[in-house]
Amino acid sequence: MSHWKLTLSYDGTPYHGWQVQPGLPTVQGTLAEAIAELTGEQVLPQGSGRTDAGVHALGQVASFSLRAPIPEANLQRALNRILPPSIRVQRAEEAAEDFHARASARRKSYEYRVFERRRRGPDGKAAERICSPFLAPFVWDCRWPLDITAMQEAAAAFVGRHDFMSFGASDPELTRRREAEEGEEPGGPNPVKTMFSSRVDREGDLLTYRVTGSGFLHHMVRNMVGTLVEVGRGSIRADAMEGILAARDRGHAGPTAPATGLFLVSVDYGDPA
Amino acid sequence: MSHWKLTLSYDGTPYHGWQVQPGLPTVQGTLAEAIAELTGEQVLPQGSGRTDAGVHALGQVASFSLRAPIPEANLQRALNRILPPSIRVQRAEEAAEDFHARASARRKSYEYRVFERRRRGPDGKAAERICSPFLAPFVWDCRWPLDITAMQEAAAAFVGRHDFMSFGASDPELTRRREAEEGEEPGGPNPVKTMFSSRVDREGDLLTYRVTGSGFLHHMVRNMVGTLVEVGRGSIRADAMEGILAARDRGHAGPTAPATGLFLVSVDYGDPA
Repeated sequence: MSHWKLTLSYDGTPYHGWQVQPGLPTVQGTLAEAIAELTGEQVLPQGSGRTDAGVHALGQVASFSLRAPIPEANLQRALNRILPPSIRVQRAEEAAEDFHARASARRKSYEYRVFERRRRGPDGKAAERICSPFLAPFVWDCRWPLDITAMQEAAAAFVGRHDFMSFGASDPELTRRREAEEGEEPGGPNPVKTMFSSRVDREGDLLTYRVTGSGFLHHMVRNMVGTLVEVGRGSIRADAMEGILAARDRGHAGPTAPATGLFLVSVDYGDPA
Repeated sequence: MSHWKLTLSYDGTPYHGWQVQPGLPTVQGTLAEAIAELTGEQVLPQGSGRTDAGVHALGQVASFSLRAPIPEANLQRALNRILPPSIRVQRAEEAAEDFHARASARRKSYEYRVFERRRRGPDGKAAERICSPFLAPFVWDCRWPLDITAMQEAAAAFVGRHDFMSFGASDPELTRRREAEEGEEPGGPNPVKTMFSSRVDREGDLLTYRVTGSGFLHHMVRNMVGTLVEVGRGSIRADAMEGILAARDRGHAGPTAPATGLFLVSVDYGDPA
């Protein structure tokens, strides 16, 4: 057997998320079909995590094993010839036998891009801008002018080890079932996660939120962004994050931000640099 | 009646081209539905030209008339609220009664983007690069290393007034019928066009071809690019363009480049600057 680690980028727009679903185009299913076409072997590549419908990836990682021996460069090139242009294998590496894309992950990094439609000028007035059709599938076209300084203060409050229950999916039973199915944390998800960095920057036309953490609950990044945008538009105070975390109640945080703005940037396995 | 000039940008990926077709999503049809939803009036906006399926626009122009009086800023904002994010009204202006997006056009500018998958390094060797899934719908992911200097020489030969029959659609009957239907040039299309500029530049990861002309035959820009790429890969000599133009025969030029890389950038009506 040969064990494989693939690093993938994909445009999530045409897919019903990562996880294979009968009769629907998914990233996992499309990748499994390409592997089967190439090798004749039926494998289900395991992702570092599921991305929801419309969520994109710059560096998703998938692992699987093959009976046939294949040179690394060949696997990458051959899969890219079979896969649609919306999914690219950036790297294909042979991995240790015990490597598992989800279980071996140490840190994950996400990016979320917000287009500020009514950006305030120096005079405090908000002129309406138009979100380019080429940008729209990759941002939240957000209709409120945002106070980035308040968002930066709120984002910093996520850094460190916290119970993120308030930022998990609104249906804890669903989350429990999903994470249990994935086998991530038997007995239910552990909502205590460590955020190593969490910051908002203005970059060109966009506000970009970047977060790196030990792990993320279902919808967690989108719920953090939805809350940060509430702060930016003045509906939640920037110093309210500690209280929202302490409440351990989804009802205290903001709404779930749209999937389109979210990118899984990279998964860190503590590889030697 | 109020007469309107809309400047539109669109991502052509989800559309079967500009022209309305029963049962298929098209840009013209989607725009007509949005106008009908807003005003209750059934109008068919006329484009400066048809873009094919998969072709994009940064500045397509459409004209139509409405019975209802509407303020300029309202029309733009209201249409953008109704239209899908893949089509944006960049400007809405009241126009003169005799303004017609196609018939009044003086010049059109197109851009075509080529991703050079096997770009040659300083050592002359071509390393294989991966076309990002976020770029793929907007480029030709071209598999040959290209000699940009030869392409630049060939592109310059298009400048001036020439008979572009060799670069028209391969089915002249179809072209004649289409242009006759459009009423552009009764009695058949005039293949004599003037190119005001025609150049290839390397910009970041891409080769960009930009052309501005008095008018374009169906498929003309894509056929010019297909020919320039043949020059870039060494299959057609850079000094062969004059001969190909003189042949007045589609068989002498290169293949039609894919629609994905093409953008209608702007349409010039000779407006006072």
